[in-house]
Amino acid sequence: MAYNLLKGKRGIIFGALNDQSIAWKVAERAVEEGAQLVLTNTPVACRMGTISQLAEQTGSTVIAADATKVEDLEMLFSEAMQVLGGKIDFVLHSCAMSANMRKKRPYDDLDYGLLDKTLDISAISFHKMLQVAKKLDALNDFASVLALTYVASHRTFFGYNDMADAKSLLESIARSFGYIYGREKGVRVNTISQSPTYTTAGGGIKGFDGLFDFADRMSPLGNANADECADYCVVMFSDLTRKVTMQTLFHDGGFSNMGMSLRGMTQYNKSFIDENTDKDTGKIIYG
Amino acid sequence: MAYNLLKGKRGIIFGALNDQSIAWKVAERAVEEGAQLVLTNTPVACRMGTISQLAEQTGSTVIAADATKVEDLEMLFSEAMQVLGGKIDFVLHSCAMSANMRKKRPYDDLDYGLLDKTLDISAISFHKMLQVAKKLDALNDFASVLALTYVASHRTFFGYNDMADAKSLLESIARSFGYIYGREKGVRVNTISQSPTYTTAGGGIKGFDGLFDFADRMSPLGNANADECADYCVVMFSDLTRKVTMQTLFHDGGFSNMGMSLRGMTQYNKSFIDENTDKDTGKIIYG
Amino acid sequence: MAYNLLKGKRGIIFGALNDQSIAWKVAERAVEEGAQLVLTNTPVACRMGTISQLAEQTGSTVIAADATKVEDLEMLFSEAMQVLGGKIDFVLHSCAMSANMRKKRPYDDLDYGLLDKTLDISAISFHKMLQVAKKLDALNDFASVLALTYVASHRTFFGYNDMADAKSLLESIARSFGYIYGREKGVRVNTISQSPTYTTAGGGIKGFDGLFDFADRMSPLGNANADECADYCVVMFSDLTRKVTMQTLFHDGGFSNMGMSLRGMTQYNKSFIDENTDKDTGKIIYG
Amino acid sequence: MAYNLLKGKRGIIFGALNDQSIAWKVAERAVEEGAQLVLTNTPVACRMGTISQLAEQTGSTVIAADATKVEDLEMLFSEAMQVLGGKIDFVLHSCAMSANMRKKRPYDDLDYGLLDKTLDISAISFHKMLQVAKKLDALNDFASVLALTYVASHRTFFGYNDMADAKSLLESIARSFGYIYGREKGVRVNTISQSPTYTTAGGGIKGFDGLFDFADRMSPLGNANADECADYCVVMFSDLTRKVTMQTLFHDGGFSNMGMSLRGMTQYNKSFIDENTDKDTGKIIYG
Repeated sequence: MAYNLLKGKRGIIFGALNDQSIAWKVAERAVEEGAQLVLTNTPVACRMGTISQLAEQTGSTVIAADATKVEDLEMLFSEAMQVLGGKIDFVLHSCAMSANMRKKRPYDDLDYGLLDKTLDISAISFHKMLQVAKKLDALNDFASVLALTYVASHRTFFGYNDMADAKSLLESIARSFGYIYGREKGVRVNTISQSPTYTTAGGGIKGFDGLFDFADRMSPLGNANADECADYCVVMFSDLTRKVTMQTLFHDGGFSNMGMSLRGMTQYNKSFIDENTDKDTGKIIYG
Repeated sequence: MAYNLLKGKRGIIFGALNDQSIAWKVAERAVEEGAQLVLTNTPVACRMGTISQLAEQTGSTVIAADATKVEDLEMLFSEAMQVLGGKIDFVLHSCAMSANMRKKRPYDDLDYGLLDKTLDISAISFHKMLQVAKKLDALNDFASVLALTYVASHRTFFGYNDMADAKSLLESIARSFGYIYGREKGVRVNTISQSPTYTTAGGGIKGFDGLFDFADRMSPLGNANADECADYCVVMFSDLTRKVTMQTLFHDGGFSNMGMSLRGMTQYNKSFIDENTDKDTGKIIYG
Repeated sequence: MAYNLLKGKRGIIFGALNDQSIAWKVAERAVEEGAQLVLTNTPVACRMGTISQLAEQTGSTVIAADATKVEDLEMLFSEAMQVLGGKIDFVLHSCAMSANMRKKRPYDDLDYGLLDKTLDISAISFHKMLQVAKKLDALNDFASVLALTYVASHRTFFGYNDMADAKSLLESIARSFGYIYGREKGVRVNTISQSPTYTTAGGGIKGFDGLFDFADRMSPLGNANADECADYCVVMFSDLTRKVTMQTLFHDGGFSNMGMSLRGMTQYNKSFIDENTDKDTGKIIYG
Repeated sequence: MAYNLLKGKRGIIFGALNDQSIAWKVAERAVEEGAQLVLTNTPVACRMGTISQLAEQTGSTVIAADATKVEDLEMLFSEAMQVLGGKIDFVLHSCAMSANMRKKRPYDDLDYGLLDKTLDISAISFHKMLQVAKKLDALNDFASVLALTYVASHRTFFGYNDMADAKSLLESIARSFGYIYGREKGVRVNTISQSPTYTTAGGGIKGFDGLFDFADRMSPLGNANADECADYCVVMFSDLTRKVTMQTLFHDGGFSNMGMSLRGMTQYNKSFIDENTDKDTGKIIYG
């Protein structure tokens, strides 16, 4: 169902790789709500993925750009304003990659060159995007900028590796730049902390299946999926949330504020059944 | 501008006293967005305020109820379902009162009978409302319940007195009940932490003017007003935010994540001008 | 090992029931570190428990008092100053009880009279203690006041029931009163958020064993025990922590900042083994 | 006064430049408490500062090392174990520098090469130190590692610039590595979030004087100074805090949990006096 929440608005969506991507769903929903879009990803991702299909389907333009390169971002924002016929009203940053994870370097054996890349792609690119946009005066007053994050920025999840640090940095950039862009142009900058989601990126995380199941049982509403995330992004881009800024917004079915659910504990306790039956006494193992 | 975000939805709004009230604005916006409402407040407040005017204007029904009394709440939810023709989709709790503040009892000289009242009216009433609704099965699946809170629940503001404790309790209840109502019915429960707002209640807080000014200069987007809060409530009641629960949502122009703004500091530093000119040296006082 | 950290200091310890109590361990350690103590608990608890044994062992005096009664607290602080020969340097509040839990009332079927009791015993008693101490000027400048709390104040744990709300209220009181007592007397007020601990109170929580095991596997250092908590209380009472106030201090082996540990996940994943072997495919269930 | 809290312990202190440095005070206090130390700083800082004086005074050894260079850190930990005669029990990281601030680049005109340096010196160096220590097995079981941070990691302070982001990253590294080092060796890793402090580094922050005054009036106990910070570091290095890990520990007189104090507001309100007297009405300006 559509509400015209983004009627007449112009947006740039970073990071749609394929139809599993959250960014893909956000693009679809934004267009349903009346927006016009420029889609962007790295030149490599544009070739590997199916972004052109999304562009066709949504009547959008694809502009390839490496979000870690200032000159690419300058080109992107300039061309986007031309293509869309005016300044930009909303931006989604959905860019994250850990080469340390890809190379299976554990967190206590990081390659520091790769760490720099993780931080650059997953966090500093957000600053570059904001700084370029501000220098070019590419955003309309009261524009809305979002980046996708994960609760690992606040609490440690084994195997999430240097991406946790990148997400902390990302959220800090959202606060720091949100202050400046807010006071000068009324632009709001927030991050959405999404449930674990089956995307090409998400699936790459070690032990993702178990974590997904655990998060789902812990969350009273279950994990939020990509479609629901797209709905939430739409309201954060709309004019109805103009005074929300510098926040990490948890869109996770309640996970972030759960310590232990009955469903999670019940499942966890099943893990001891075998161990118990091995014992003569039949007592629970920590009884 | 309206989007039909609440088309066909039924809501109950607690706490509209007069047209300064946030609850009043929420009621107006909810109806603009297509909702049907029951308005409620204590019998005394219904007489003192102008709630009947709001009812007329919005085509709503007023049902007086004391939110601290379980039997009143049972009557309210039962009648509301009858009047509105079905189960409830959203509820706003906007009830807060500190008799200690009214009686000018400072925080280190509280009357404990009055503290009980503060907690009952401002926090426990939220539990009662949720428990009654759940027992009567008065809420539709995926309903949305909101309460208004203030950042004093997290950080201490002089003069906010026992209301700070009530707001902490309120936010805890939102988490605790949000877990249960979420897992069983998909109902989400959140609090919105609003900027200081000139309402009949807000104006009663000691030193409110100075705090309002400070918060406004600290917040990159300035303080959020009651109309903007109403917009935010509408999106939280809509189907676009179905996986957000158990959260304290800051709607405050960025205040909650500010330590010090340039505007705030500049104003603060002006306070030393006189003191400096009193000094022979002319040096700044901590120079 | 002892360091004389509390040499010459006078303290009051609330809530030692028996040698499982954290308060009991704190009393022992405080005396080892050179303090003189008054021990207190309700008249009933003083009769039921073995507090007199602790008093004998530590050369302390027992003064029975109901921490929910202002007049009892006035008597307690007055007599404690007499017995100890001067104003008090540190206080431990370790009082918590949920009659709703005892009566097995779930959180969506609370008895509100019992909720009032939970809040009074577990949280408001802390305010009463501080207000009485301040009115009697019973604390030395730079005194240190601690209360024991649990992370359920921040995140929901099924079965922790209304105690979660009480702990939120308790931590808010620590901030609110910490501000006032700090600015006027340099007194610091903090709460320690302790791992689940096998005490008479802790053991009463539904599903405690499973939670204890889960917390232990989630915490990189394992759960903190009562002896370790006593060590931490001692440093918070000492003169070496004079500028720490209004804080919730997590003493939990890292649990509070963990999202998922390898040990926790490994154990959790074992719970699916049986379910998998039931399946023809042999695939993992969410594969 | 000394308590022998660190008797027989071996420590490494990073970042003592001169007797204004917090690290300098920590070194003095650690030795008073019975520790043996290696002091370290960059080769340039060792020449510019007066670290050799501290070494003489405390009977410590200086080993120059650039904390951003893995090979320097390897040399440092190896030599430190030799000099001190065994594995290390505690480490203080007090390294922070923003070249963007030095070059007066505002946050919306960052030089990205300089940002990389800020992050490397102020945050990633902490990871390098921990990774090198772990690979060399240079820390004793249950060792304690601390880094100094500032509340700007959580809330935005104008002018704190990219250092805010560095501190967020630093705290995330403390959590991420604290998990791994904790589960494997019982090593705890924490950060101390200190009040603004007059050091050579602190004095360089834009508008520091005003911020210092504001923080002091906001904090019920006033700002914590470097000596008090040293006391707190000592207890965190001692065996009495063995189950505290992955935490940001606020040592700030209560500032972090304050929203507004009476002293702060009173001073702030003075700033309006002149403006008011300019007005005919005599009304307060926002009345």
